[in-house]
Amino acid sequence: MTDRFDHHVLGIGNAIVDVLSLTEDDFLLREGLAKGSMNLIDTERAEELYALMGAATEASGGSAGNTVAAIGSLGGKGAFFGKVCDDTLGQFYRHDMRALGMTFDTEPLPNGGTPTARSMILITPDGERTMNTFLGACVELGPDDIDEQVVANSAIAYFEGYLWDPPMAKDAFRKAADISHAHERKVSITLSDSFCVDRWREEFLGLIKDGTVDILLANEAEIKALYQTSDLDTALKLIQKDCPLTAVTHGEQGCFVISPDSLGGIVSVPTTPVERLIDTTGAGDMFAAGFLYGHALGLPNETAASIGNLAAGEVLGHIGPRPQRNLYQLAQQAGLL
Amino acid sequence: MTDRFDHHVLGIGNAIVDVLSLTEDDFLLREGLAKGSMNLIDTERAEELYALMGAATEASGGSAGNTVAAIGSLGGKGAFFGKVCDDTLGQFYRHDMRALGMTFDTEPLPNGGTPTARSMILITPDGERTMNTFLGACVELGPDDIDEQVVANSAIAYFEGYLWDPPMAKDAFRKAADISHAHERKVSITLSDSFCVDRWREEFLGLIKDGTVDILLANEAEIKALYQTSDLDTALKLIQKDCPLTAVTHGEQGCFVISPDSLGGIVSVPTTPVERLIDTTGAGDMFAAGFLYGHALGLPNETAASIGNLAAGEVLGHIGPRPQRNLYQLAQQAGLL
Repeated sequence: MTDRFDHHVLGIGNAIVDVLSLTEDDFLLREGLAKGSMNLIDTERAEELYALMGAATEASGGSAGNTVAAIGSLGGKGAFFGKVCDDTLGQFYRHDMRALGMTFDTEPLPNGGTPTARSMILITPDGERTMNTFLGACVELGPDDIDEQVVANSAIAYFEGYLWDPPMAKDAFRKAADISHAHERKVSITLSDSFCVDRWREEFLGLIKDGTVDILLANEAEIKALYQTSDLDTALKLIQKDCPLTAVTHGEQGCFVISPDSLGGIVSVPTTPVERLIDTTGAGDMFAAGFLYGHALGLPNETAASIGNLAAGEVLGHIGPRPQRNLYQLAQQAGLL
Repeated sequence: MTDRFDHHVLGIGNAIVDVLSLTEDDFLLREGLAKGSMNLIDTERAEELYALMGAATEASGGSAGNTVAAIGSLGGKGAFFGKVCDDTLGQFYRHDMRALGMTFDTEPLPNGGTPTARSMILITPDGERTMNTFLGACVELGPDDIDEQVVANSAIAYFEGYLWDPPMAKDAFRKAADISHAHERKVSITLSDSFCVDRWREEFLGLIKDGTVDILLANEAEIKALYQTSDLDTALKLIQKDCPLTAVTHGEQGCFVISPDSLGGIVSVPTTPVERLIDTTGAGDMFAAGFLYGHALGLPNETAASIGNLAAGEVLGHIGPRPQRNLYQLAQQAGLL
C-alpha cells in the first residue's frame, strides 16, 4: 500500500437515490416487509409502495456510493463506478459525488431510458431501516464501465455484495478485481445484507477462499449468515481462516477486526454510543469508509476501525445515509487523523 | 370560526422542491448572496450555482406548502393550491402532500414542459438559510387554479408573500380572498422575507389597510421592513393599528401576538430554545401552521402561538423544512392540544 496512487478507495456499486420516510412497525407488518432487509422490487410494486408510504426526503445513496462520499468527507481521494440515467435523479447523484471532489465518470443512460434507481427506505422508531429498491439503470452496469486506469490507480477497489443482484455487474467486478490485483492493489467487498448473503453465499465464499478478497466487511448478521451459524464466535474464527483481514461491525458495541493470530488475531474495537439514534441507513457504509481509508493511509487496523466507528456514529443521528458534518474535522478532534 | 369546514387551513403558494446543502459563510460572500435572503434565479444561474454548491439532500418545501404539511402533522385538515410539473420532482411534491392526508389537486403542467420549481438552499454554520429559487412551473399558477369549493370550505385561506413574484399568482390570491370573505372565512398572509417586502411593500400595506388581511404573519425583519423602521416597538404599534391580528416571530425569544388593546394588546409568548440549531429552513412556516391551526380550533391566541413556537422548534434541529416528528404528539406532550 506504499505505492503512489490517485485514489484511496474506488467504490463500485449500485447508484441509488434514497427516498427516506419515518414509519411505524405496523406498516412493515402490513406490507410483509422483514425489518432491516433490502427488497428488490419492480416498477409496479414501487408505485404501490410509494403511494402507501409517508412523506419523504431524498438523498443520494447506494452502499458503495455512500462509502466513496464518506472518503471525500474524510479528506481522502475517491472514485466511483455506478450507472445512473441522465434524468433529474441521476443529475442529483452525479452532482453529489462530484461536489465532494470524487471522480465519477461512468457514462449515464440517456434521459428517457431506464430511470435512475431509487430505494424507498422505511425507518422505524428504533432507527432500523428497511429498504425497497427499484434497480432501474443499475442493471446496465457491466464490464465496459470499468475504467482500467482508475482501477490501477486506486489503493483499494471496494465492491458491494449487492452487485450480484443486477445481471452484468458481477462481470464488472471480476474485471476490476483482476486489474486491481495485477497492479498489486487490494480488493475489498462488503457482504451488504444477510438476505444478499443467502442469495449469493457460495459465490461470496468462493471469492473469499480463492484469494480474490483481501479485505472483507460485514456486520454480525451477515457473517453469521455466510457460515450459516447462529454463533458469532464460530463465524469470526471461520473468517479468520478464510480471509487475511476482516472487520465485522457489532452495533453499539463497535466492531471486531479479524486477522491471523500472528497479525493481531480477533480484536474488539469499542465505539461511543450515539446520543440519539434516528436512522441506521448508511452506518455500515460509513464504517467501511473509515476502515478502508485508514488502511489505505497505512494506519494500524485498530485506528482504522476507530475511524470507521466514528464515521458510522455521525450518520446515526440524522435521516439520510451520508455525513452531514465534515468527517475529517471529527476524526481530527478525536485524535484519529 | 365556529362554522363547520372541511379544512382548517388552505395554503396557496409556490410549490418548490428544496435542494439543501451545508456551506460556509465564505461561499455566500464569493457568490454575492445576502445571508437569509431568497433570491430568484434563472435556469443559467441555477445550473452555475448548483455546479458550485456542495452535496445536497432534497425535500418538498415552499413556504405555504410547508405550513400545510405541518397542519397535517398537527392532526389537522389542510389543502394546498400550487403548481408543479408532472415530472419526478412534481411527483415527489404531490406524494409528500397527499401522504399527510392533505388535499392537493392543482392540475400539474405536463411532463416535458416547464419543470417543477426548485430552491437551492445554502445553510451556514449558524443555521441560517439563504435561498436561491428557480420558480419553474410556479409561474403558471393563476386564477383558474382556485377551486371555489375548497376555499369556501376552509376556515383560513393562507397566502405567502412570495406569491407576488410570479406574474399571475396575485390574481389567484385576489380571487381566493374574495371567495373566502364571501363565505365568512378568514384570510391570512405571511410577509415571507424582508426583501420580498421591499419588492411589494405598497401592495402588502394596501391589502392590510383595506381589510383584505385578517391575520398577518411576519418575523422581526419583515415587520420592520414593512414600516421602514429599525425599531421593533414602532413596527408592532403600527401593525396593531392596521391589522386585527398579527403574530411576529422573534427568534429564540419566541413571538409577539398583536391585537387591539381591547383584545389583549401586544403580548410576548416565549419559547424553549432548541438544544442544537442546525437549519432554520421552514421555521417560520411551522410557526404559521401552529398559530393558524390553533386559531382555527378557536384556542386562545397565546396557546396558538405556543403551538407555533413548538412546531418551529421541531424543524430547527435537522436539515429540511418540514417536521420529522409527529407535531400532534409533541403538542399533546406539551399540554397544548
